[in-house]
Amino acid sequence: MKKLLTILCLLLLSPCSYSEDPPLDIDYSIISKTITNNAVALRERALSDNLSVDIVESLTTEVGPRRMGTEGDKRAISWALEKFKELGFDRVWTEEVLLDRGWVRGEAKAEILSPYPHNIVMTALGYSVGTNGDLVGEIVEFKTFAELEAVPEGNNLKGKIAFVSYSMSDFKPHPSQPSMGGYSEGTKARSRGHVTAAKRGAEALIIRSVGTDSNRYAHTGSGYGYEEGVKKIPAAAVSAPDAILIQNILKRETPVIMKMNMTSEIIGPKKGANIIGEITGREPSDQYLVLGAHMDSWDEGTGALDDGAGVGAMMAAAAFIGQMEKRPKRSLRVLLFAGEEIGFYGVNDYMKKHKGALDKHVLGAEADGGGGRVHTLIPGVGETALLVINEMHKLIAPLGIVLSNNNNAKGGSDMSVLGEAGMPALNFSQNSNDYFKYHHTPNDTFDKIIDEDMRYLTAAYSTIFYLAAEMPINFRH
Amino acid sequence: MKKLLTILCLLLLSPCSYSEDPPLDIDYSIISKTITNNAVALRERALSDNLSVDIVESLTTEVGPRRMGTEGDKRAISWALEKFKELGFDRVWTEEVLLDRGWVRGEAKAEILSPYPHNIVMTALGYSVGTNGDLVGEIVEFKTFAELEAVPEGNNLKGKIAFVSYSMSDFKPHPSQPSMGGYSEGTKARSRGHVTAAKRGAEALIIRSVGTDSNRYAHTGSGYGYEEGVKKIPAAAVSAPDAILIQNILKRETPVIMKMNMTSEIIGPKKGANIIGEITGREPSDQYLVLGAHMDSWDEGTGALDDGAGVGAMMAAAAFIGQMEKRPKRSLRVLLFAGEEIGFYGVNDYMKKHKGALDKHVLGAEADGGGGRVHTLIPGVGETALLVINEMHKLIAPLGIVLSNNNNAKGGSDMSVLGEAGMPALNFSQNSNDYFKYHHTPNDTFDKIIDEDMRYLTAAYSTIFYLAAEMPINFRH
Repeated sequence: MKKLLTILCLLLLSPCSYSEDPPLDIDYSIISKTITNNAVALRERALSDNLSVDIVESLTTEVGPRRMGTEGDKRAISWALEKFKELGFDRVWTEEVLLDRGWVRGEAKAEILSPYPHNIVMTALGYSVGTNGDLVGEIVEFKTFAELEAVPEGNNLKGKIAFVSYSMSDFKPHPSQPSMGGYSEGTKARSRGHVTAAKRGAEALIIRSVGTDSNRYAHTGSGYGYEEGVKKIPAAAVSAPDAILIQNILKRETPVIMKMNMTSEIIGPKKGANIIGEITGREPSDQYLVLGAHMDSWDEGTGALDDGAGVGAMMAAAAFIGQMEKRPKRSLRVLLFAGEEIGFYGVNDYMKKHKGALDKHVLGAEADGGGGRVHTLIPGVGETALLVINEMHKLIAPLGIVLSNNNNAKGGSDMSVLGEAGMPALNFSQNSNDYFKYHHTPNDTFDKIIDEDMRYLTAAYSTIFYLAAEMPINFRH
Repeated sequence: MKKLLTILCLLLLSPCSYSEDPPLDIDYSIISKTITNNAVALRERALSDNLSVDIVESLTTEVGPRRMGTEGDKRAISWALEKFKELGFDRVWTEEVLLDRGWVRGEAKAEILSPYPHNIVMTALGYSVGTNGDLVGEIVEFKTFAELEAVPEGNNLKGKIAFVSYSMSDFKPHPSQPSMGGYSEGTKARSRGHVTAAKRGAEALIIRSVGTDSNRYAHTGSGYGYEEGVKKIPAAAVSAPDAILIQNILKRETPVIMKMNMTSEIIGPKKGANIIGEITGREPSDQYLVLGAHMDSWDEGTGALDDGAGVGAMMAAAAFIGQMEKRPKRSLRVLLFAGEEIGFYGVNDYMKKHKGALDKHVLGAEADGGGGRVHTLIPGVGETALLVINEMHKLIAPLGIVLSNNNNAKGGSDMSVLGEAGMPALNFSQNSNDYFKYHHTPNDTFDKIIDEDMRYLTAAYSTIFYLAAEMPINFRH
């Protein structure tokens, strides 16, 4: 902003001054002038400090992929403990999380055998069984998950590979539907397709990757697991270009025969951990604000966008607050959850362990939408606290953030489990940038992080959580 | 244009008419009105007919990868013969091309062992030897090929993996340098790095992929082969994100140890073929115009942009001319060359077989720049023919094409071999679109073709070659 003003002044070639003061319309009876000034200084620091990016670089370079229960996950836990300390968090600990079953991805190879031989880029969906050697079958296409469901249960798909070709990009948003509609629709087959297909006799399920790109990567993702009494069939995603290729072959109306070989394997239980870093507030209290992200990633990329960006933004936002002249009034707790990708293992364990202390969680939010800027702040707080949120928002409005009229935020991602249980929450809706091009693919790597956007993201969290930490507000409903 | 005029008329809300007639400034003493009208009709047909795209779809779907000497190449030859006939070419034949050595790509796996374990996306450079089991070495970075060359020959790189990290995108064009400068610089290490590194004792060469993307694909490409008396070391490209990752690890100043395993293998001789389709002109003559593209592709994508687009544009452009009411005066020969990617095998063989008939090649051009539109027509003809080219250009100017002041075109790609030998030539410089993001990667697939751009590309070739076929011009120098 300041730079822009300077440039405008230069362009106008006229004497010109601008104030460093915060917006004039802040109601200082709600947020004091000192706190307001501090918040502005903090925001500007966050906008010029690349710490959040450096954290993502460190995590993706020194750790990389970190699916829960893997060696990478163990390294991520050590990394986080060390990073929290380095950043000045004064209480740092882990809470063990049990994972009832591990999973080995193995390799996924596929080829069209006829009518035209082609290698197919495919990846196993999370927690799929393998093919137990080569699996050969005729591909039968279903344009949507509903089309697959419409096949009567029984043996109609015996010997067949069910292929749900739905493309997330084809989703036509309806004013009443959220923009994530295409993703939601795509994940139906991703999460339930293998059970639905198995009930109809299919030998395997393949889906077009749930993503918006046309790169030749398959997007992995998690299913709901297998159902008792239903045959466990392999489930995999093919890349968008391969899905299009298969559709173009199918248009020629020959039977299309595919060979798949997946060595995925469900294995015994594993352990992971939620990693927690606290900056203790200056006033004695057992209350804290919670900033969440998830530490686990999928295993083919280095988890830069999903959710290295969240880890970087939250660690940096809290660290900036902790590094201010005065420590914040209330404590800040950064929660790095285990096993979000494979079914909210970390947050569910956290809820079990901390459900008696839910009222000590003053306000929470999670960053799990990549490295894009925030465009909308959605509150989920008591009616009386809305007035305060309204004033707080004015201090992040210069970041291009609007305040939603809704008051139904649950905190996002893992944090929504706490939000649903009654914790006051905020959702920081982000520009998705190219999130759905990269996420859950080998292409989710550090070079996709846009530095300036990450600084804007971090500034939003930092400013709001500083204000919430300083002000003796009860955000509860 | 017509649509645009209609829209303008509607916007002006006034009576308005426009003529279907060609531009008024055509010199009808050079190109007759009838030929001009035919050329315009042909251009408009090409702009509205998706044939070139359909051909690329057919080639990439029914054939796919087709590196010279492979099974895919054999299928491509059959496909082309059939397609030529289907499109009305009346003389269709192949000319066998010998390949002195075949090559099996095999698999390329790589991982950083320390300080941080990472899988690395890598692909063998064409005609590299394999690693003969695991090859483990310390990575030594050279920012440019010149830096590697600056190491004295001998054993300085003993036990090391030489890594040339040059990024094509870093190239800063100088007004005097062609825009392809970054590609040229990048291909130095790609073509000669393995020999240069081996002379300095290195165990292997890796390069940052020569491309403009930050996708996690490695770009393959061909080297100049091995040198007598110099150790044959493996040569591979890593993806841009992996190159960046390795650089970021190296910045931490620990020795970075990599393990590579490549099962590439140079094998015995193979055979391929140039595939030739002719539309015989209506006047008896043994002269012909030549439209070139290369049939071979790299083997990880389906070769849609490189050079499916060229094949589609040239087959369609000639077919459109052949389907006109009157056959063209001169014959048109579409040449689909073998083995361009691996060293101009096809065109070199063609030159050997046809060098006595070079004067029968009236004018030639090759399309090997992806599916983008033409922006500049560069002549390479006799001074007297320039006048005619000037008039011909007016008929493709509405496609957004300018005429270059240079007169040094050799025809492009394979065709330049004929151009260098004296054949009059034209270069149709194309917008590269995202060509260097995709080319030589698994991501070079049909979905990257932009239909409208392909129609513009085809219209340019079709219009110019129709004119050249109808007019009794000697294009020679």
